[in-house]
Amino acid sequence: MKIWIPHEHGAGLMGDLPSGTTVEVLPGADAPMPSAPDGVRFWVPPFLARDDVATLAARLPDLEVVQLLSAGAEVWTGQLPAHVTLCDARGVHDSSTAEWAMTAILSHVRGFPAFGRAQAAREWSYTPTDELAGKRVLIVGAGSIGTALAARLHPFEVTVTLVARRARPDEQVHAVDALPALLPHADIVVLILPLTDTTRGLADAAFLGAMPDGALLVNAARGAIVDTEALLTEVSSGRLSAALDVTDPEPLPADHPLWTLPNVLITPHVAGSVPGHHRRAYALAGTQLHRFATGIPLENVVTDGY
Amino acid sequence: MKIWIPHEHGAGLMGDLPSGTTVEVLPGADAPMPSAPDGVRFWVPPFLARDDVATLAARLPDLEVVQLLSAGAEVWTGQLPAHVTLCDARGVHDSSTAEWAMTAILSHVRGFPAFGRAQAAREWSYTPTDELAGKRVLIVGAGSIGTALAARLHPFEVTVTLVARRARPDEQVHAVDALPALLPHADIVVLILPLTDTTRGLADAAFLGAMPDGALLVNAARGAIVDTEALLTEVSSGRLSAALDVTDPEPLPADHPLWTLPNVLITPHVAGSVPGHHRRAYALAGTQLHRFATGIPLENVVTDGY
Repeated sequence: MKIWIPHEHGAGLMGDLPSGTTVEVLPGADAPMPSAPDGVRFWVPPFLARDDVATLAARLPDLEVVQLLSAGAEVWTGQLPAHVTLCDARGVHDSSTAEWAMTAILSHVRGFPAFGRAQAAREWSYTPTDELAGKRVLIVGAGSIGTALAARLHPFEVTVTLVARRARPDEQVHAVDALPALLPHADIVVLILPLTDTTRGLADAAFLGAMPDGALLVNAARGAIVDTEALLTEVSSGRLSAALDVTDPEPLPADHPLWTLPNVLITPHVAGSVPGHHRRAYALAGTQLHRFATGIPLENVVTDGY
Repeated sequence: MKIWIPHEHGAGLMGDLPSGTTVEVLPGADAPMPSAPDGVRFWVPPFLARDDVATLAARLPDLEVVQLLSAGAEVWTGQLPAHVTLCDARGVHDSSTAEWAMTAILSHVRGFPAFGRAQAAREWSYTPTDELAGKRVLIVGAGSIGTALAARLHPFEVTVTLVARRARPDEQVHAVDALPALLPHADIVVLILPLTDTTRGLADAAFLGAMPDGALLVNAARGAIVDTEALLTEVSSGRLSAALDVTDPEPLPADHPLWTLPNVLITPHVAGSVPGHHRRAYALAGTQLHRFATGIPLENVVTDGY
C-alpha cells in the first residue's frame, strides 16, 4: 500500500508501519509528485492545508482515507469524493490549545501585556490587576479541547459552563440555543468549536452585545467564527476585551486596527504549534494506518461537518 | 479596645467587630497618629510595610498583636518586643500568587512576551513555541501558596516536586538539602518561600548552575532570595531564563541590565495585588480580632522566622 505524508521525519513518528507499506513525501498540493497518484490509498496532508488540496485529493483514483494532522477540518468537509473517509486529529491538540487559552486568559486578567510594555520602557509601574479567581467562564465548544480547558480551569476557583451543539445533561453541557441566556453571565467567553456553515459568524453583534461590560472574548477556534467588524466596535469602545489566536482575515494585515488596541491580545495561530504536536499527530496517523490496514473502523471520522 | 488599621475601608471588610472596639486609621509609620499610642492593643499595619514600622511598634506600650496583611513577615521578624504576637496573612495570597506564577510560567513557555513585541510591530510572525505539558516543575517552598500552585499545575500534564525546610514524606515534600540532587532535573524552578536569614541568597551561583540548560527560574517570593549578579550571569548568556515579580534591588532601577533581556520577564511585585486581596486580608484580620477579644489562640503566628 502506498501512503503520502508531508514530511520525511513523519514516518519515524508513526511507529512500525504495516508490512508492505510504501511511504512517499508530498509536502504540498503544488509540490512535484513523488510518483504517479494512482495507488495512493492513505494520505496525510500538510498541517496547514491550503484550499486547493481537496482538488488534488479528487484526482487520486485509489484514495480511501485522508488523515489530517489538524483538529479543524473546515478546508476539507464537503470537498472529498463520497468514497473517501476524512479523519481529523481530534485529541492531538487538546493540551496545547487548552494551554494557549489558559495563557491568554491569565495574561489578560493579570495585566501581563501592559507589564510587558512597562518592561520595554524599563518602568517599575506597580499596578494592582484583576484576577481569575471568582470569574465565570463560558466555553463554547465541548469537544476534547473544550473539556481539556475546563479541566485546567477547575483548580482556579472559577465557575465553568460548557456549551455544545446539543445539550448533554449528564455532563452539564448546555445546548448552543442557551447562549443568549448564558452570555450575560459570563466574564470570559472562550470559542473552541469547529468552523462550519452554522458556526460561521456565530460571535456576531448580538452575541457580543449580550456579553457584560468588561468581559473577555477568547478565540482559540477559527477567525471566521467571529464577526470581525462587530468585535472591532466592541473592543474599540473598550466595552469588551479580546484574546485572539485566529483572525478574519488571517494573517491579520499590518494596517488592521485590531493590532494596536491595548485591550486586544493577538498571537499568530500558534495555539497548537508546540514540540509535542508533530509527535502526537503522526502517532495518531500511524495508529489509524494500522486500523485501516487491518480493517478496524477508523476513529475521528468527520461526518456532517460535525 | 483600641485598634489601628491602615485604611478607613478596611473596617467594613472586617465584619462585625467585638463590642467596645475603637477603630482608628494609621496609614503609615510616618503619618500623624490618630490618637496617643497608648491603648492600642491590636495593630494592622499597611500592606507594604516599611523598615521603620517595627520601631514604631516598639513605642506602643499596650500593643499585644501585630496582624499583617501580607504573607511575608521578613520586615517584622525579630523586631518586636517579646510580648507582642506577630501574625501573617498566610492563605490570603494563595490564589493570587499561584495565579501569577501560572501566568508567568505559561507566558514564558508559550512565548507571549515575544508575541507581544510582534503585536506592537503589527507583525503576524508565526513561530512554534515550547509547551508546559511534559515539563518537570520544582516548587521551592511548600507552604500554602506552593501547595496552591501545585494544585493549579496538576492538570497541565507536568511533574511537580515540592521542597520545604523539612521533608514531609507523607505529602511527597522533600527537604531543602535535597536541592542539589533535584535541581538538575527541573525544567522550571519556582521560588515561593519566606525570606529569612537562611533563605537569603539561596538561589546563588551554585543553585543556578545546577539548573539544566534552558531552564526557567520563577521568583514569586522575595528578591533577596536570589543572588542577582549570579542570575544576571546565567540569563545574559542565555543559558537560563527568568520570570521575576520581585527583584533585588526593588524597585529595579531603570538602568538595570535585567530589564532588556528577551528571556527575562519582569512584573512590579503584583503577584498578590488583586481585588480579592483586601477583602480576604481584612476578613482574616477581623477573625483574628475576634479570637483575640475572646481569648482563643491566634492563627498564623510567626515564630522562629518560619
